[in-house]
Amino acid sequence: MRIYDLIKKKRDGGTHSKAELRFLIDSYVSGDIPDYQISAWLMAVYFQGMSSEETLDFTQALVESGDQVDLSSIEGVKVDKHSTGGVGDKTSLIVGPIVAACGLKLAKMSGRGLGHTGGTLDKLEAIPGLSTELSEQEFIEQVRKTGLAIISQTADLAPGDKKLYALRDVTATVDSIPLIAASIMSKKLAAGSDIIVLDVKCGSGAFMKKEEDAVKLAQTMVDIGEGAGRRTAALVTDMDRPLGQCIGNAIEITEVIQVLKGEGPEDLRELCFALSSELLQLASPESGKNYQALVRQAVASGKALDCFAQMVAAQGGDPRITQDVSLLPQPKYSAAIIVPQDGWISQMDTETCGIASSMLGAGRLKLDDQIQPSAGIRLHRRSGEQVKKGEMLAELYTDDEALLPAAKAKLASAYVFAEEKTESKALILARVYAKGNS
Amino acid sequence: MRIYDLIKKKRDGGTHSKAELRFLIDSYVSGDIPDYQISAWLMAVYFQGMSSEETLDFTQALVESGDQVDLSSIEGVKVDKHSTGGVGDKTSLIVGPIVAACGLKLAKMSGRGLGHTGGTLDKLEAIPGLSTELSEQEFIEQVRKTGLAIISQTADLAPGDKKLYALRDVTATVDSIPLIAASIMSKKLAAGSDIIVLDVKCGSGAFMKKEEDAVKLAQTMVDIGEGAGRRTAALVTDMDRPLGQCIGNAIEITEVIQVLKGEGPEDLRELCFALSSELLQLASPESGKNYQALVRQAVASGKALDCFAQMVAAQGGDPRITQDVSLLPQPKYSAAIIVPQDGWISQMDTETCGIASSMLGAGRLKLDDQIQPSAGIRLHRRSGEQVKKGEMLAELYTDDEALLPAAKAKLASAYVFAEEKTESKALILARVYAKGNS
Repeated sequence: MRIYDLIKKKRDGGTHSKAELRFLIDSYVSGDIPDYQISAWLMAVYFQGMSSEETLDFTQALVESGDQVDLSSIEGVKVDKHSTGGVGDKTSLIVGPIVAACGLKLAKMSGRGLGHTGGTLDKLEAIPGLSTELSEQEFIEQVRKTGLAIISQTADLAPGDKKLYALRDVTATVDSIPLIAASIMSKKLAAGSDIIVLDVKCGSGAFMKKEEDAVKLAQTMVDIGEGAGRRTAALVTDMDRPLGQCIGNAIEITEVIQVLKGEGPEDLRELCFALSSELLQLASPESGKNYQALVRQAVASGKALDCFAQMVAAQGGDPRITQDVSLLPQPKYSAAIIVPQDGWISQMDTETCGIASSMLGAGRLKLDDQIQPSAGIRLHRRSGEQVKKGEMLAELYTDDEALLPAAKAKLASAYVFAEEKTESKALILARVYAKGNS
Repeated sequence: MRIYDLIKKKRDGGTHSKAELRFLIDSYVSGDIPDYQISAWLMAVYFQGMSSEETLDFTQALVESGDQVDLSSIEGVKVDKHSTGGVGDKTSLIVGPIVAACGLKLAKMSGRGLGHTGGTLDKLEAIPGLSTELSEQEFIEQVRKTGLAIISQTADLAPGDKKLYALRDVTATVDSIPLIAASIMSKKLAAGSDIIVLDVKCGSGAFMKKEEDAVKLAQTMVDIGEGAGRRTAALVTDMDRPLGQCIGNAIEITEVIQVLKGEGPEDLRELCFALSSELLQLASPESGKNYQALVRQAVASGKALDCFAQMVAAQGGDPRITQDVSLLPQPKYSAAIIVPQDGWISQMDTETCGIASSMLGAGRLKLDDQIQPSAGIRLHRRSGEQVKKGEMLAELYTDDEALLPAAKAKLASAYVFAEEKTESKALILARVYAKGNS
């Protein structure tokens, strides 16, 4: 087998066999195939795509390029949840405790924020004392005891994907649905859970700008998951405005606690309940239960908040924050943006909101940038809402006063006002389930 | 300017500016852009193509990446001729002397054979004593005195093309008409002549298998030449059978001499006369002369053969070979293939004939392979001809007897016989002239 022939085959619209894809990934990871051949192949894939079967085989070759987490020693149904990344997206921290309260086991390896999107680990680490650096044994032990753990990736999961992604990033070959789907799903499959629910974001703050593309990506990922023997479903959800009112780290934890108490913003609660219901339904599809009711009960009973407190404590954090959010890091400085005119907020550029939060110290531009846990934004009013001149529009928080003016100007630029009410989009745009693999 | 943005632009079907193409080539040649980004860009070009203007700008960026030969010290009209490569193609060695006899100046830098196609330099060097390694000054001096010189490339012409070609060769990005056209024309433009005639081969022995593609390549190259201020024309010619009866090196020189004496195979003579006429017409398009008659006269008068002898002598070769071909290297061994059945030769796979010749020692598979000047093939009968069982079909020559059986079997496999006469294609399939650059 020669890589030249594989490049030519894909260039000419051919379909790779499982053996070819395994050869390609294994030889690339071992250094036997140079970057310049793989980048030509990636561009050919960009243009010619991959069949469903090919995408599954490719994903499995990526999985098999590294370690796979073995969760078999945990009793019960092990579930995972993945979001393609958004602004204000703290759903994992809410969905995890809810489904754990309902008896599922959430064993999740998560990532850090980069660019305009935040990272679940950064948010968790805003809790005083909490560590996300657990060994695989500690991780499994914690899931067994408390029903959930969210940690930083331990094992060498899908190293082929890591190497490929770095190359895609500099060769304009990121925007390919089969490549994106395989990249995400290779890490989910290697992480070992039985059930996967995906939240595919769509809109100005998301990687996928068009709903059609988001649905296609969701279906491709669901097909991969099901093809690999994991029950998988996806929601395609709106990211034309930030999710919830809080963007940052400690400030998002306060919103997590609100929702786990049955409070908090409507949109965030709706999405978390929907994702939780999907997980419950995939775990016991024939039970005919009212999953939404189970979810509401887990919250109303306080069990979901308890599960969150147990996870925090198990990972070394102070569980009292669930009762007293003033124990979370507090910012030294703040500034407000005031509504400039009567009318309606017709648009909010979500990516701009994320960048403004990052500029306050809540995010990072480079992987080794330091984060300020207390920095962030509270959006008092969001798109679709009627506003009056002089009302509070948003507040910005930081420990570094010098960062406020630029971040404030950036955030202000995200809003578009209109004199008349504008139609706002539904939060959940589509639900995507298995439809077979061909 | 960033290469990432240029890859994305081409991927999305955009058109590069002259400045972008110059940046791309200059940065690649200097090593500032890595292979893996250029190979992704090349694959994007494969899919998205290039506009006429873009192809011209790209070619000129390749030209400007290296030296350019200055022929201005040679009086008269300097002409060049290029073939995209075939089997048995010795036309340059015939056209050069003919047009020199008609007063034009042929200053040609040529290449060596590789794979199934032969190289003009290898053929010339089969003449005892002849050298193709002249300095640029010696080259210009010889053209001034004798009207023609065919030498090995001296200057560093289009190094950007050389580096790009090596990358295309291993990334399945060779088969792109704008990339092929720019590659060929960058070297022709850098070689400095005023007029260029191109022979674009088409068929089983050529790079372009389909006439439609060959015409498109021809038009693209003509447009580049004219866009760069050189008068340019192209013939698209059949390569579904070898050109002439001889394949090899010394053996092709004997056929060159035959044609220059007004003898030799009809097809080879027709093509050489047509290419020569095109050059004469481009050199003085308004003269209203009968160019075919001028060409025939140059041959009939013996002037063309004289010019060839002068070139041979000027490059250190023995000019007596033009009168006595037995002074050329003679093979030690030969073998014959006999016609196996009565009927017609309906097809000859030209590439297979070229490979058989190479297997006898006449060609090389790697650039540093040694060549046997006397090795080769004489095709007594070719496709389109009626044959009788037991007649001589072809003879094979080599200095290494052990090479005969495999080469003979290979050559025999090139023929397809039929019981009835089959229509044979015209030799000159199309003539392509300037039509403007957009």
